Amino acid sequence: MNTLLDNISIVLVDAKTPANIGSVARGMMNMGLSRLVLVNPPRDGNNDARRLAAGSHEILEKAAVFGTLKEAVSDQGLVVGVSRQRSRRRKNVRAPRDMAKRVVPLLGRNLVSLVFGNEVNGLENSDLALCHELIAIPSSEKFPSLNLSHAVMVVMYEIFIEAAGPCPETRELAAARELERFYGHLKDSLLSIEFVDDRNEEHILFSLRQLFGRARLDAREVSILQGILSSVDRAARIRRK
Amino acid sequence: MNTLLDNISIVLVDAKTPANIGSVARGMMNMGLSRLVLVNPPRDGNNDARRLAAGSHEILEKAAVFGTLKEAVSDQGLVVGVSRQRSRRRKNVRAPRDMAKRVVPLLGRNLVSLVFGNEVNGLENSDLALCHELIAIPSSEKFPSLNLSHAVMVVMYEIFIEAAGPCPETRELAAARELERFYGHLKDSLLSIEFVDDRNEEHILFSLRQLFGRARLDAREVSILQGILSSVDRAARIRRK
Repeated sequence: MNTLLDNISIVLVDAKTPANIGSVARGMMNMGLSRLVLVNPPRDGNNDARRLAAGSHEILEKAAVFGTLKEAVSDQGLVVGVSRQRSRRRKNVRAPRDMAKRVVPLLGRNLVSLVFGNEVNGLENSDLALCHELIAIPSSEKFPSLNLSHAVMVVMYEIFIEAAGPCPETRELAAARELERFYGHLKDSLLSIEFVDDRNEEHILFSLRQLFGRARLDAREVSILQGILSSVDRAARIRRK
Repeated sequence: MNTLLDNISIVLVDAKTPANIGSVARGMMNMGLSRLVLVNPPRDGNNDARRLAAGSHEILEKAAVFGTLKEAVSDQGLVVGVSRQRSRRRKNVRAPRDMAKRVVPLLGRNLVSLVFGNEVNGLENSDLALCHELIAIPSSEKFPSLNLSHAVMVVMYEIFIEAAGPCPETRELAAARELERFYGHLKDSLLSIEFVDDRNEEHILFSLRQLFGRARLDAREVSILQGILSSVDRAARIRRK
């Protein structure tokens, strides 16, 4: 997976705030990306950038610097521009999730750049024209403009999730026979403490089966519950004596 | 949709950095959320918070403040804790997307809190215990720890996307008859400029159909392409004269 994500570049065009660049570098490292490209970056503010970069100084130091977006993306197979939600080009603008699903399969044989404009105006029209496709991050119509590092984070997150593939369930659920043993024990215990009797046990037990069913018990949890029932049984026996 | 998202609270426990709180407020406004809850917030640094909050000062000013998480969530129907990826409780930790799919349908009749711990240590065990379910944001194993406002952003983004429902295609594709008229014109033009002849036109036209098919042309694009062909036709007639 790592080698695939190494084929993605995050390209920041005319970023004004060094702290944002540092924050983007940190997010890149969180999302397994390594290639940062700066087009016309600010000259000063390296300290701010390094402070926000946390453990990702190497990404900052290895960042490639270009004077124009055209040079920065000249060797790239796919150039994706991140535009404003309200862009006039909106008709052709897709969602990041949709982009991630189509981009990740390309990574085996292609370099892909994700291009972000500056904090105030986003990408200029001349830069948007260099992009092969455009995406916009869905956001509130009342306040659509995301912080630059937030925008980069969301787009990288979609790529990371898609590259990681479906997230498998890590818990191993208890087998039905273990559950049935537990429900049998539960019924006996509830009878012995006289919470239910022969007339209503079926109704109550059905509700409890639904409740524990929704909880999707694993084997350890079933054994904790059985342990509780055993303690209840002991307490009930003591009371009876 | 707005009223649904108003039932979600973003709860920050022991956040240390006012700039992060401001940044979270901005992200909330971007993602259509309004309820910020601060448990044991820092006493100073309001200026930093306000600076990063951009247009979302109202969210900061209306933030509810509590001394403990227990008080903060006492009236909530569902309390979701955001834990470290490497949490020892990992087995029970789900992904944000999965959470969003299950939480959004609850919002009509329930208050939901999304709870985030401090920048350094995340949520303490005593706070995790108050959460009804836990999620973790997938991240690189080498550098899993996200900036606080990035973490909040990703979780809110998943909620926003899920609440917005499926994103419909906004472009209306050209109808097949329009495409066929274009392909007919294209064939005639390519013959007239002698780019193809009767022996190979079928083969080349098939490739071009595939190319334009992948591009999913809309009516306006077809009319631009037809306009180009008309200009080509004129130029070819002039040359012949």
